Amino acid sequence: MSKQAGTVHLVGAGPGAPDLLTLRAARLLAQADVVFYDALVHPETLALAKRAEKIAVGKRCGKHSTQQRFINKRLLDAARKYSVVVRLKGGDPMLFGRAQEEIDALHAAGVSCEVVPGITAALAASADLRTSLTRRGVSRNVTFVTPRVGEGEDASDWKKSVCNADTAVMYMAAGQAAIVAAKLIASGMAHDMPVAIVENASLPTMATIATTLGALQSAGERMTHGGPALLMIGRVFKHVKSARSAVTDRDALREVLSA
Amino acid sequence: MSKQAGTVHLVGAGPGAPDLLTLRAARLLAQADVVFYDALVHPETLALAKRAEKIAVGKRCGKHSTQQRFINKRLLDAARKYSVVVRLKGGDPMLFGRAQEEIDALHAAGVSCEVVPGITAALAASADLRTSLTRRGVSRNVTFVTPRVGEGEDASDWKKSVCNADTAVMYMAAGQAAIVAAKLIASGMAHDMPVAIVENASLPTMATIATTLGALQSAGERMTHGGPALLMIGRVFKHVKSARSAVTDRDALREVLSA
Repeated sequence: MSKQAGTVHLVGAGPGAPDLLTLRAARLLAQADVVFYDALVHPETLALAKRAEKIAVGKRCGKHSTQQRFINKRLLDAARKYSVVVRLKGGDPMLFGRAQEEIDALHAAGVSCEVVPGITAALAASADLRTSLTRRGVSRNVTFVTPRVGEGEDASDWKKSVCNADTAVMYMAAGQAAIVAAKLIASGMAHDMPVAIVENASLPTMATIATTLGALQSAGERMTHGGPALLMIGRVFKHVKSARSAVTDRDALREVLSA
Repeated sequence: MSKQAGTVHLVGAGPGAPDLLTLRAARLLAQADVVFYDALVHPETLALAKRAEKIAVGKRCGKHSTQQRFINKRLLDAARKYSVVVRLKGGDPMLFGRAQEEIDALHAAGVSCEVVPGITAALAASADLRTSLTRRGVSRNVTFVTPRVGEGEDASDWKKSVCNADTAVMYMAAGQAAIVAAKLIASGMAHDMPVAIVENASLPTMATIATTLGALQSAGERMTHGGPALLMIGRVFKHVKSARSAVTDRDALREVLSA
């Protein structure tokens, strides 16, 4: 590694809305020589990197179109060639982003690495709903969790974490909502536990479905239409109303609303 | 309420570093007629509100120097008088910020209210430590929690939430770290469970103490020096090292380092 090696900045792009980027992230994008970006990053955010080579590395909703090891290798190569390397990740890099694998690979190679936090989807959805995740007398804690249904489930019991929290926000869960609801009910959660499903948090296409764990167990995936969505579970969501933005694409959401 | 009533924006100021503010928050501050701000907001952040009347409402670390009801009243009065009212809160407004009481008061009075999310301290600390809160094979969930030791403790069991999470970040806990550690050990957590205490996350005065639950039980509050600090608990923190920034105030931290 030459002494001229650059720094890799793992940067959170935030929940979707381009103006929910941080000032620091905007500055780094403007300075970047190269940007490796995920599928869900907003085009306006990417456009801030005026002088950078922009390289899609295609991760979306936990799927890995590009192998993680290959991304690590590309970051290392870029740090040898460029001064300012940005790895732009949806939301916050340190939550469900596999950042540690990239950080460890850079560290092992002696490449300098900085992390810039981003607004995570749960906080954007909470703002959209005008519903605080904690609330005096109702909730003093919140858990952020991804479910793992099926194989290897017992290795890390997501159900315990949800059942023992006052408020839970489940990432990457909407695609298996019915089975998630069934497993939580089987673990002792109440049928009438309020659930808010928020799709496309912070974007003009944001849509909310207010339901309960019991209803979700029956209707499940039919409630959502496949956009990035959060399952938000807890008594704080009792007064949330189903809603969609005026500018929401009617066709895309017809399925949601007829569920 | 006249039709000319303004909008109240509950805005997250982020964890401390002024450039971890969002672009949206910066724009709103520049447009604001009046800003009601908490004690921990950075002066540079406040300075972005060039044309606004700035009013301290003095909340710090959960203490309420100004009564919440009085703050609600002032927000309502301001919305009647001004077009753009900003309520600037440390971190994210929807986590441990009593936002709901302000939102509900505004809603009841028919005043328009918007929420702008902010970077919460846990994510800034995770970035500072270059340690992801979730990690493949180690942690698939994280809980954010405030402890409540003593009176009314059983009403909302913070210990259950921490013990059933893979990773836990405790806000407003450093002042009672020893008793928190003792209660978690009594609830079944391992003595050797890694703990990272992060003070002044994102700021030049950031300091980290790497320890274990067992050591914290003995040393406790002597480890911290009273700045805003997070207790971060979990196996993901196993490789964290104690550290302090080069620009850290030596006097303020002498106590920490001699603990």
